Amino acid sequence: MTSDVLDQLRDALGERVDTTPGALDGARADKSGHAASAPPVAVVHAASVADVQAVCRIATATGTPVVPRGAGTGLAGGANAGRGEIALSLRSMTRILEVRPDDLLAVVEPGILNGDLNEALAPHGLWWAPDPASRAISTVGGNIATGAGGLLCAKYGVVRDAVLALDVVLADGRLIHVGHRSVKGVTGLDLTSLFIGSEGILGIVVGATLKLTRLVPGAPRTIAATFPRGVRSAAQASAAVTAAGIQPAIMELMDTQSLAAVHALLGLAAPPVGAAQLTVQTDGPAAATEADEIAAVLRDAGGQVAVSQDPAEGERLLAIRRSMHPAMESLGRTLIEDVSVPRSALPAMFDEIARVEREYGIAIPTVAHAGDGNLHPNFIIPDGETDVPDQIWAAADDLFRAALRLGGTLTGEHGIGVLKKRWLADELGDDQWRLQRDIKRLFDPQGILNPGKVFP
Amino acid sequence: MTSDVLDQLRDALGERVDTTPGALDGARADKSGHAASAPPVAVVHAASVADVQAVCRIATATGTPVVPRGAGTGLAGGANAGRGEIALSLRSMTRILEVRPDDLLAVVEPGILNGDLNEALAPHGLWWAPDPASRAISTVGGNIATGAGGLLCAKYGVVRDAVLALDVVLADGRLIHVGHRSVKGVTGLDLTSLFIGSEGILGIVVGATLKLTRLVPGAPRTIAATFPRGVRSAAQASAAVTAAGIQPAIMELMDTQSLAAVHALLGLAAPPVGAAQLTVQTDGPAAATEADEIAAVLRDAGGQVAVSQDPAEGERLLAIRRSMHPAMESLGRTLIEDVSVPRSALPAMFDEIARVEREYGIAIPTVAHAGDGNLHPNFIIPDGETDVPDQIWAAADDLFRAALRLGGTLTGEHGIGVLKKRWLADELGDDQWRLQRDIKRLFDPQGILNPGKVFP
Ligand SMILES: Cc1cc2nc3c(=O)[nH]c(=O)nc-3n(C[C@H](O)[C@H](O)[C@H](O)COP(=O)(O)OP(=O)(O)OC[C@H]3O[C@@H](n4cnc5c(N)ncnc54)[C@H](O)[C@@H]3O)c2cc1C
Ligand SMILES: Cc1cc2nc3c(=O)[nH]c(=O)nc-3n(C[C@H](O)[C@H](O)[C@H](O)COP(=O)(O)OP(=O)(O)OC[C@H]3O[C@@H](n4cnc5c(N)ncnc54)[C@H](O)[C@@H]3O)c2cc1C
Repeated sequence: MTSDVLDQLRDALGERVDTTPGALDGARADKSGHAASAPPVAVVHAASVADVQAVCRIATATGTPVVPRGAGTGLAGGANAGRGEIALSLRSMTRILEVRPDDLLAVVEPGILNGDLNEALAPHGLWWAPDPASRAISTVGGNIATGAGGLLCAKYGVVRDAVLALDVVLADGRLIHVGHRSVKGVTGLDLTSLFIGSEGILGIVVGATLKLTRLVPGAPRTIAATFPRGVRSAAQASAAVTAAGIQPAIMELMDTQSLAAVHALLGLAAPPVGAAQLTVQTDGPAAATEADEIAAVLRDAGGQVAVSQDPAEGERLLAIRRSMHPAMESLGRTLIEDVSVPRSALPAMFDEIARVEREYGIAIPTVAHAGDGNLHPNFIIPDGETDVPDQIWAAADDLFRAALRLGGTLTGEHGIGVLKKRWLADELGDDQWRLQRDIKRLFDPQGILNPGKVFP
Repeated sequence: MTSDVLDQLRDALGERVDTTPGALDGARADKSGHAASAPPVAVVHAASVADVQAVCRIATATGTPVVPRGAGTGLAGGANAGRGEIALSLRSMTRILEVRPDDLLAVVEPGILNGDLNEALAPHGLWWAPDPASRAISTVGGNIATGAGGLLCAKYGVVRDAVLALDVVLADGRLIHVGHRSVKGVTGLDLTSLFIGSEGILGIVVGATLKLTRLVPGAPRTIAATFPRGVRSAAQASAAVTAAGIQPAIMELMDTQSLAAVHALLGLAAPPVGAAQLTVQTDGPAAATEADEIAAVLRDAGGQVAVSQDPAEGERLLAIRRSMHPAMESLGRTLIEDVSVPRSALPAMFDEIARVEREYGIAIPTVAHAGDGNLHPNFIIPDGETDVPDQIWAAADDLFRAALRLGGTLTGEHGIGVLKKRWLADELGDDQWRLQRDIKRLFDPQGILNPGKVFP
């Protein structure tokens, strides 16, 4: 069976079918630390919509699973391809088909890196706002399929706010176009939003019409605030900024352990013992006023605050936040979690994390996109463990339930993938869970699109 | 059968079941000028989620269609209830359950009027941004079910951008909660967006968690620009504003005929012969600068421009735009259309409207939300016609196809309802149309939720 699939793929796609051991092994994993137990049948490097359609037709005819893949930077195991599956890489489809400054839109192929796209847009005075910390290494198609967020989201929105239309190849190879080129449009059901964040289980994104934003003129202001009393007071301070009605472009929180780990990695002087950090950026015409207002709120909340108008200094401060991932990697393997809560609940969520640390006797260094209430608690996996140990999952389970109790959600931006599907029904409720699974079946009656992801 | 349904409804809901001739007759029509040919079985004035569930259970048990209804201001016939159907009015469910300035959210029942909600939010320094011209008379639930837009959308977004979560009663009476209270959230498929704009065919919205915006401080600037050379140059000017990278809060266009009709209605001095008008508003910290920049662009494009910083004068100028609907009503019955095109295509779309006027020998007074490319061409229905005559539909058909050719869409904000369903497959394509219809069937296997709307 497998060799028949391979023959058909080779007939249709020639040397785009890659069975080198390195490629097969690479396709087993994303950046979640989780990997499929065996390699896939092949990695197909699609170069065109027709290539994707050919793969889906063969997959349908032979009942072979297809796992779409961008750059493989996902943190939920969503792009991991295993035994008997075809890994369908979109990474080679990198063309920018259209940039329209007058309509504030661009039409792109899915494999272009977010960072490369934004470099190409900058000379037009434009950018695509979604800015995952992985923007330099993740694809626009992957960003869309995960519904990615990032640092600038509270002010500039997430992927869901920045896509007008999509070209999608369905499980059986048919191509549909959903959405509009116009700003407004309510013709029929909103399938564009349904595909956004659908993690490759409903269709393959082969083209996207993106909603662009004008580059914001002027230099941003950057505020660094250290909270000697620790993370709870930093969290309260960030909630106070939102409550005061000021909208920063970026507001990132690092707890004591994260801050210490990054400082160690970068060879910086150790931060004050027990201190947490907020890094805030304001931009646009009111950047200076807003920075002053925010600084005042943060000082009132017990922060030691410095405001800078030097863009280089701003970048240096944000680089500390952006080094979190490598800093955690330097500590060992980590399970990066992604709960999101209403902004006012951020202090309470940090209390819950502290409780889980105490009760399970583990460390959970945590950073947060505090401007929108999205936390990334990092569970360090003990040396020698090949999988996430039960003890860690039990602690994570406890933490997920705490987030739900606080009115939050399991995943703010990383998705369900393979890692969180057992909690999905807890959040959705059985009725909604079944409805969602039935939608999946409607799009993919044979169950060949990224099976085992999101739904069991 | 009908009397059995009525008995069951009365048993369950007592005096909330209304069969007075006035109520039954009122439920036949919305503001589209289209009405069901016969009255429904009953109007049920739901006062609670349990009421809505009771109606849906009876409807499911008896196979009776249910037509959800807000304030009945829709322009697509979506809320019209006819023979053998239950009109389910949500208009009495008007409670505001929660306002959270710190989390920028409110939880409301669906029947509250948009205007009433915003009055209640103002003392908190907050507003819900979607602002259909009908905001004083339409419900939040109706706004959500139609995916409403409005005047401020290019800058502040449409309904789709302003809803975090929904409570929805399904066809069989089950209640589900979709979405999140947190800003970010990608847990499972995005059913919230699927319900937004679904025109009552997938479920009944019985509660909404709304994303709020801070009231913008400071007085707006208002720019009135008259274009003696007519609507094409006004359209070019508005496209030039977007192309210049400036984002007004409001940018409304009125063509020669609209302007003349409104001036006549309001008893104002007649506008210059052949002139079209742009009314633009800027707000926020850069309001003054942006107004000057826009004024310069408009002057370059041939406009006679006046900038005002007097809020009363601004309101007076916008009132002219807001009087369009009564002005059209004073001309007779109208079919209000709603195509939307990419902003750069606005001048070309006005050329198409002029062509259709010539070819069909009819007048089509048109206004546009020029900031987002959404046009409302008004077809005047000749006296004595009870329905929209074929000649008008032929002209509208021509106009729809022109909008699609220009990369636009059939409906920017009013929806498909009964009036546009025959064009739906033209825009979606057969494959997508079938997929959407299958989603409808999945949510409503018996076909009792607003049947005959959107899909035949
Ligand atoms: C250092 C680091 C920082 C990160 N920071 C953030 C952050 O701030 N915000 C955030 O949201 N995420 C973040 N992530 C997670 C990850 O980068 C994002 O989820 C990103 O959007 C994934 O893009 P990708 O191209 O790598 O997709 P992949 O990992 O290849 O795939 C992700 C999922 O999308 C599906 N998929 C990919 N392409 C397609 C397609 N064309 N059609 C259909 N399905 C497809 C896959 O099947 C899989 O389910 C971070 C990751 C790392 C390693
Ligand atoms: C003068 C005037 C100006 C207008 N201007 C605009 C404008 O600028 N922008 C714009 O977008 N629209 C505009 N409209 C159209 C209309 O006001 C909007 O579509 C509005 O959102 C409808 O709200 P409603 O409460 O009247 O809904 P209805 O007319 O009662 O219902 C509309 C649709 O929604 C469904 N529905 C209603 N409530 C629910 C619910 N709780 N659950 C499920 N389905 C439901 C109905 O079945 C129907 O299909 C205008 C209308 C008028 C008369």
